[in-house]
Amino acid sequence: MTTINEMGQRARVASSVLAKLSTATKNHALRAMAEALTQNTDAILKANQKDVDAARNRGMKEALIDRLVLSPSRIAKMSQCLNEVADLSDPVGQIVKTWTRPNGLIIGQLRVPLGVVGMIYESRPDVTSDAAGICLKAGNAVILRGGSDAINSNMEIGTVLKEAAATAGIPSDAIQVVTTPDRQAAEELMRLREYVDVLIPRGGAGLIRAVVETSTVPVIETGIGNCHIYVEEDAELDATVNIIINAKCQRPGTCNSAEKILIHRNVAQTFLPDIVSHLQKAGVEIRACERTRIIIPNLKAASEADWYEEYLDLIIGIKIVDNLEDAIAHINEFGSHHSDAILTASFDKALRFIQEVDSAAVYWNSSTRFTDGNQYGLGAEIGISTQKIHARGPMSVDHLTTIKYFILGRGHTRK
Amino acid sequence: MTTINEMGQRARVASSVLAKLSTATKNHALRAMAEALTQNTDAILKANQKDVDAARNRGMKEALIDRLVLSPSRIAKMSQCLNEVADLSDPVGQIVKTWTRPNGLIIGQLRVPLGVVGMIYESRPDVTSDAAGICLKAGNAVILRGGSDAINSNMEIGTVLKEAAATAGIPSDAIQVVTTPDRQAAEELMRLREYVDVLIPRGGAGLIRAVVETSTVPVIETGIGNCHIYVEEDAELDATVNIIINAKCQRPGTCNSAEKILIHRNVAQTFLPDIVSHLQKAGVEIRACERTRIIIPNLKAASEADWYEEYLDLIIGIKIVDNLEDAIAHINEFGSHHSDAILTASFDKALRFIQEVDSAAVYWNSSTRFTDGNQYGLGAEIGISTQKIHARGPMSVDHLTTIKYFILGRGHTRK
Repeated sequence: MTTINEMGQRARVASSVLAKLSTATKNHALRAMAEALTQNTDAILKANQKDVDAARNRGMKEALIDRLVLSPSRIAKMSQCLNEVADLSDPVGQIVKTWTRPNGLIIGQLRVPLGVVGMIYESRPDVTSDAAGICLKAGNAVILRGGSDAINSNMEIGTVLKEAAATAGIPSDAIQVVTTPDRQAAEELMRLREYVDVLIPRGGAGLIRAVVETSTVPVIETGIGNCHIYVEEDAELDATVNIIINAKCQRPGTCNSAEKILIHRNVAQTFLPDIVSHLQKAGVEIRACERTRIIIPNLKAASEADWYEEYLDLIIGIKIVDNLEDAIAHINEFGSHHSDAILTASFDKALRFIQEVDSAAVYWNSSTRFTDGNQYGLGAEIGISTQKIHARGPMSVDHLTTIKYFILGRGHTRK
Repeated sequence: MTTINEMGQRARVASSVLAKLSTATKNHALRAMAEALTQNTDAILKANQKDVDAARNRGMKEALIDRLVLSPSRIAKMSQCLNEVADLSDPVGQIVKTWTRPNGLIIGQLRVPLGVVGMIYESRPDVTSDAAGICLKAGNAVILRGGSDAINSNMEIGTVLKEAAATAGIPSDAIQVVTTPDRQAAEELMRLREYVDVLIPRGGAGLIRAVVETSTVPVIETGIGNCHIYVEEDAELDATVNIIINAKCQRPGTCNSAEKILIHRNVAQTFLPDIVSHLQKAGVEIRACERTRIIIPNLKAASEADWYEEYLDLIIGIKIVDNLEDAIAHINEFGSHHSDAILTASFDKALRFIQEVDSAAVYWNSSTRFTDGNQYGLGAEIGISTQKIHARGPMSVDHLTTIKYFILGRGHTRK
């Protein structure tokens, strides 16, 4: 049994090989990996069935089973994602800029891989192939520690990807799946500073919190989305209803779906009946503030905890606010700094919202559902960062690199 | 007594004001702060004298006293640094880029402050004003937790800076000095995730390690410098001696001074007598590998621990290596990923060294002493990052910002 420490050592060794690979070699490997996923669909589905059966036997909820279960079309999508990563431009080796100092020293910035990336995630087995592909394209070795629920799927996907990558000359330790998905292995990975350059957790609030609190490896926090739609008094009713329904219902289990509506008091009376009736028709449970319940009395009352909550479900909170300032203050206090939107005809108000709401993505007259690497045109994403350092918003290949300074002298010494 | 939690809350409130300040206001404040430092030189020196006296009474070594003690010229330099920060361009509010998606959504990146920066540092009181100035320019509130040795100096400098900044309209909680510099206050600051966006430790290896291991706030690790000069077989002897003497002796207490010489075996016999005699004339203690001691028998033997050590003193390790590959492997294993140099006539060898040495700054035919914000032309620095995420190498105003995405729609919903 390989220990986490050994996996780290091996990843570090592989990373120095990966850093020197040509773009052509990496792309060749990615396409081979994409092809291998579809060719091994049956084996992957068989492994996945074991996980799904075990999960059902343990009584896992169907909503969670849905995140775990693979199908030929989901595997085809994983394969397509790897091909798309191959199509992205390669940031590694780019000279970001160079300049000459008065003393003649030439200074430059060279884009290089991070080195070794650790991923800690929950049930979704497609993260295994997405993360492996994005890390490889950026020249990083990756250690993948998925959830125990998906262990058979992840191991099978990992084996398929490694074998395919090997045919293109990628070292086998470039992609490693942790086969002991217990808590201890995760904690060892979180403290493997010697070998791991960055840790990216993906999953629910509990997982993210555990990683942030335990890890001594630098962490890029991802994904909790308590997203708001703020409806100004000059918003247009039809567009408001469309955007709210889209942001809540198009895929309610995602981090960029809306969890709260804030509405200006001057349009609450006229807009709320329409908004509420559309939401209810779409099967959405509403939790409302007291002022909303004066206008529409039968709604369930929101608790203080509701304003912090990421439901990931067909539930939404509605709160009437007095003005733009109150909306911004509420979002900055209760939100998760992910994605928030203002619906308004006013450029001034939109600009103020964009400047003052402290979130990774701030929208004007648009659904929040667009916060996504592909939707932004950045390509496949490895997660959506909700912290401010290193990367904010959707993270793709470029965000898995860093720079180093190179300095060219001719016998230069400091005065 | 203000608690750390209250300081965090106040810093967060101040940060939302700071984020909206004009460049002119910030520069006006910085120049007022610079002026106030020189005008209050006597008061600062008086406070500093208390710290120095207390340190001497506790038996602090003179080398450390030297880091603590202020003088009119040191205060003038702190003042000059603030004026230089005022001269730097303001990154806040820059639109980094914008693009339009096929569906017509306009997506852009806006540069914004990080929010609240926590600084944890040791004896040097000049860090107080440098950090306050750089954080203010980038629109951040800062909480400064200096060492207990410098508490009187830091409090006086903090008061002078706050009062001067206030005359320019800066909120007084923009710059806060922790007046209880005990371990508990530092640990509270390290866990103040709700209010602090990034923590920057500056100091010795022990401090950095403690912050990395305790902090749940994202950390940017700075400064341990176990820097190498690798002498290739085709290096030029005179330039080699000059660069080594400069890199070791020009200011041996700094993180970018050389701590180790690696030398190609083919020139060891001819170069080492000259190098060693110049180092010894400069008062440098040499700790040598066995092969070096065969050539020059009277040198002290280096232990395994020496290869990891940052001396910050007139001590240097010398090791003979077989070739470039061994030199790179040694640096990557024993170095601190800070600054390392190759001395060679060969572009091929230099390029390989630059690509494969995994350090923030990699030099060709130059002293390592140039790793510094001012020397790179970036302006005053808040530290030198030796980690890979967010910033690597000297960190200045730009590195204390992040981006947010803004998305402009016209009723856009996701398909």
